[in-house]
Amino acid sequence: MRDFKSILNFIYNEAISQTEKGKVATYIPELAKIDIDNFGIYLKTMTGENYGVGDFNTPFSIQSISKVLALGKAMELIGESVFKRVDVEPSGHPFNQLALLEVENGIPRNPFINSGAIVIADILISNLKNPKTDFLNYVRDLCADKNINYNNAVAKSEKDTGFKNFAAANLLKSFKNLNNDVEEVLDFYFHQCSIEMTCSQLSNVFYFLANDGYCINKKLHLSNSQVKRINALMLTCGFYDEAGEFAFEVGLPGKSGVGGGIVALLPDHFIITTWAPGLNKKGNSLLGMKALEQFTTKTNLSIF
Amino acid sequence: MRDFKSILNFIYNEAISQTEKGKVATYIPELAKIDIDNFGIYLKTMTGENYGVGDFNTPFSIQSISKVLALGKAMELIGESVFKRVDVEPSGHPFNQLALLEVENGIPRNPFINSGAIVIADILISNLKNPKTDFLNYVRDLCADKNINYNNAVAKSEKDTGFKNFAAANLLKSFKNLNNDVEEVLDFYFHQCSIEMTCSQLSNVFYFLANDGYCINKKLHLSNSQVKRINALMLTCGFYDEAGEFAFEVGLPGKSGVGGGIVALLPDHFIITTWAPGLNKKGNSLLGMKALEQFTTKTNLSIF
Amino acid sequence: MRDFKSILNFIYNEAISQTEKGKVATYIPELAKIDIDNFGIYLKTMTGENYGVGDFNTPFSIQSISKVLALGKAMELIGESVFKRVDVEPSGHPFNQLALLEVENGIPRNPFINSGAIVIADILISNLKNPKTDFLNYVRDLCADKNINYNNAVAKSEKDTGFKNFAAANLLKSFKNLNNDVEEVLDFYFHQCSIEMTCSQLSNVFYFLANDGYCINKKLHLSNSQVKRINALMLTCGFYDEAGEFAFEVGLPGKSGVGGGIVALLPDHFIITTWAPGLNKKGNSLLGMKALEQFTTKTNLSIF
Amino acid sequence: MRDFKSILNFIYNEAISQTEKGKVATYIPELAKIDIDNFGIYLKTMTGENYGVGDFNTPFSIQSISKVLALGKAMELIGESVFKRVDVEPSGHPFNQLALLEVENGIPRNPFINSGAIVIADILISNLKNPKTDFLNYVRDLCADKNINYNNAVAKSEKDTGFKNFAAANLLKSFKNLNNDVEEVLDFYFHQCSIEMTCSQLSNVFYFLANDGYCINKKLHLSNSQVKRINALMLTCGFYDEAGEFAFEVGLPGKSGVGGGIVALLPDHFIITTWAPGLNKKGNSLLGMKALEQFTTKTNLSIF
Repeated sequence: MRDFKSILNFIYNEAISQTEKGKVATYIPELAKIDIDNFGIYLKTMTGENYGVGDFNTPFSIQSISKVLALGKAMELIGESVFKRVDVEPSGHPFNQLALLEVENGIPRNPFINSGAIVIADILISNLKNPKTDFLNYVRDLCADKNINYNNAVAKSEKDTGFKNFAAANLLKSFKNLNNDVEEVLDFYFHQCSIEMTCSQLSNVFYFLANDGYCINKKLHLSNSQVKRINALMLTCGFYDEAGEFAFEVGLPGKSGVGGGIVALLPDHFIITTWAPGLNKKGNSLLGMKALEQFTTKTNLSIF
Repeated sequence: MRDFKSILNFIYNEAISQTEKGKVATYIPELAKIDIDNFGIYLKTMTGENYGVGDFNTPFSIQSISKVLALGKAMELIGESVFKRVDVEPSGHPFNQLALLEVENGIPRNPFINSGAIVIADILISNLKNPKTDFLNYVRDLCADKNINYNNAVAKSEKDTGFKNFAAANLLKSFKNLNNDVEEVLDFYFHQCSIEMTCSQLSNVFYFLANDGYCINKKLHLSNSQVKRINALMLTCGFYDEAGEFAFEVGLPGKSGVGGGIVALLPDHFIITTWAPGLNKKGNSLLGMKALEQFTTKTNLSIF
Repeated sequence: MRDFKSILNFIYNEAISQTEKGKVATYIPELAKIDIDNFGIYLKTMTGENYGVGDFNTPFSIQSISKVLALGKAMELIGESVFKRVDVEPSGHPFNQLALLEVENGIPRNPFINSGAIVIADILISNLKNPKTDFLNYVRDLCADKNINYNNAVAKSEKDTGFKNFAAANLLKSFKNLNNDVEEVLDFYFHQCSIEMTCSQLSNVFYFLANDGYCINKKLHLSNSQVKRINALMLTCGFYDEAGEFAFEVGLPGKSGVGGGIVALLPDHFIITTWAPGLNKKGNSLLGMKALEQFTTKTNLSIF
Repeated sequence: MRDFKSILNFIYNEAISQTEKGKVATYIPELAKIDIDNFGIYLKTMTGENYGVGDFNTPFSIQSISKVLALGKAMELIGESVFKRVDVEPSGHPFNQLALLEVENGIPRNPFINSGAIVIADILISNLKNPKTDFLNYVRDLCADKNINYNNAVAKSEKDTGFKNFAAANLLKSFKNLNNDVEEVLDFYFHQCSIEMTCSQLSNVFYFLANDGYCINKKLHLSNSQVKRINALMLTCGFYDEAGEFAFEVGLPGKSGVGGGIVALLPDHFIITTWAPGLNKKGNSLLGMKALEQFTTKTNLSIF
């Protein structure tokens, strides 16, 4: 039997001894304040084991990781018709590029690039009674933990500086792929991204994607087929233009955020969350990716 | 001596007998109402001749033609430093493409594509006391005619539907190539484009670009060298991605607008304005381009 | 226990009753002659089961499927240094686009787009004594079947019409990412693509990628980590710009060819090959993709 | 009256005192050997004046300047039907980019980017009896000077290293926009580019484009309208992605070559040729462009 605890400890010790830690994202002023030395991992297995090391109980900004949860909620609400407005192909380009959106007539390549996530936010606004409240409750329900909140200062920080997202939303609007007002959609989107969670909370929240759609309190949120689709999307599109690299090095469906978090999972086996705020050049957590690569190599547990 | 009057009459009769007239621009709802059968020409020569045929006294929306006047004013205000924020090369792409702007880090290809004109608007706002009033007075002064105004309904129509321009302005802002607020810059820009003028007024306004910088009431607005530069820009960039075709067929510096107007000029010789609201596939006045091609062919007057 | 036999029979009957079969590739004249009604499947499980239905014993041109075998051999010869000359990211573009190659300075996006496969061919030529003979023997060894050959007529047909591949090879050469002569590399590449195999032979050949690197006659060809990488690449890049769709619908690493073949596999469980010459718009076998989608849905066997 | 002689002397003295001279093109090994200190100007006016300063009698490789002569010959042979196979718009991209050619289905943007010039070469091969001999005689006739030749060493040097041109020609072939063999077309094209001429010979050769189609020995080669078109093309497309800059700074139709030559002309007035082998970052002669800018500024002679 694999000794997860010692493997995680080994990885933790490796990680904190690294001198090259990448760079904390600075384009969102609020995020620039985070201490780069934070490092946490939390592993949750389907057999009931839970292991945390380092700063696994410190909340951080989940940012783009929220896109997976938003997609999940949108599919729960309107099913596969989500994919009439957003495609399912890797973009092959950085996460904020508008060029492709323009060429492809306002249909974002996938729900995990910003323009795609903005379309998903638009769907949620159209289909939730109190979008911000309802979405937060959905996330809280997924992990049976009421202690999860938006960080309004981060949301405001993004609103004040997120001109590229305003550009993307207006471009979507020009292609008639945004039904609500730009301001309203982005207000929701920036809040969604500002949610703060710990590694352990994130591992709990993503449980349903490793468990055929049933969340930790046994409620069914998505069908088996829908879960498979979200996992496929995480694998092919979860890491901006480094998705191939992550599939290649780690071999798990996963999603990163510029706050330094990464959640990855092996269906029917485990969910693992890392947090290390320093990013590599492609915008993914440098030490988080390394830690996950070591984890799948040492445990020989991957989808491939 | 050339008989301009009979040449213009011939061209006019040719034009109004055409059945294929292109399509009136519909993306700005207010413009969609224009009668496609309008057709006017006004020729003003530096030797003092003036000829008008057809609807040369009907005001129309000058739209992108205003970009030349805005550039002229910006150069009058801050000189060649304009070109630190906008390049002088043909874009090789449709007038509203954001892709290139993104690749080239927020420096628009030239002042006549929308993003470039938005940067010029930003410059004017920063350098005029009362931007909208001052700019309108500048245009009125150029042609010594107080009877020129913004069309607020057209400006509002563009504001309500101009999502691509909002996208472009936000993208510029994200690259720090917009100093004022997006809303303020676009309000000015939409008003600038909404100015209504007749063929004769436009020929008068553009007089200074055929007259070494001196406008019709003899006031010097730009240096000889600056005029040369604006004319060069009109020739290489004045017709979206049909600039080469216009240089090739007509052989004059000129500028078109989606309202169906075209102004062209031969330095030291004449200014000619056409108006025909039907556009070709590239967004330039179909019959206007044909009329100008005939004019330079029949008179053998072009820069080449 | 899953009844593979009846599932395959069901899928077979579904498939042959379809009227919409896609279109046989015509850009290679020799391939245009294939009867579109061919349809075969062959399933090989790691527990020793083998099931074939339809035309599973008819040889067809494996075309791009050969790229996986060429990559495998290149990694066997020079290891991970392959990836200094070719990247591992999805291209997000059609399989023959040169634009990206030009922008990215001659480093192909991945080894499964044509330019990437041409670089791999160059590596094989530099590292094999008798490239064509040695590569054919490698493929024969993988499935312990000497009855596999190049189709010289198909190879010649591609040579005479494959101008885009000549363009790609010359572009690679201009970026110094091709060490051997263009003619020599493409002669090898066209032969590699011309190999003819049956569904059963292909399932046997790909056995080593589902079996930790050990081929069917128990010889070790690649390390566990290398196999994981090739499988990851198949998942993210195996279906041109439809890779996301295949991951999403089928959920298995796989590779298609314009000859109408698809090989897919679930590590440690099975290899399945389909053959249906009619292609969809993206160039992948239309009925083959449907068959595999049904197979993973009905068996609930996928990596996700 | 303008004193051309003293203006040219002033420009010459300015030029040779510059320390920043750009860089000699090295991608064609034979050209890399040229002494960067060469500098010549030759002015020929329609009133019969001729002025040469510096190295105006030293032959150099005309390279892309030959594209204008090839286009002239092609139009002489098959008229405007040339433009069914090549467009007339600025490319907005560097001279060797294939991306646009791929997107636009094998129709080059204009006859002065490499792919466009290769199409023109294909037309010449199809329409000349002895292409290389006939084209050389055409150039000799234009300037009434038999002392003009191909440089076979330069042509061979380009053939051995011109992989991007092979890529472009094969891409054209894949789009069926090349009727003759790639090898044959490029052999002609490389020879065409290898022609060596002096500044005075070039000014004589381009005389017909400033003289309504009549060359210096009074033979009519092109119609007035065809000459206008070629001049328009030089203005909008003659300087790779610096065409706008040249129009802007110099204001004359012109064409540069990587050998360091530039020919420019004012219809009905003069032809001026400069030669300075050091190139700027865009591939145009650094001191040549400066000299021409000074010339049009000091003489106030430009098309604008």
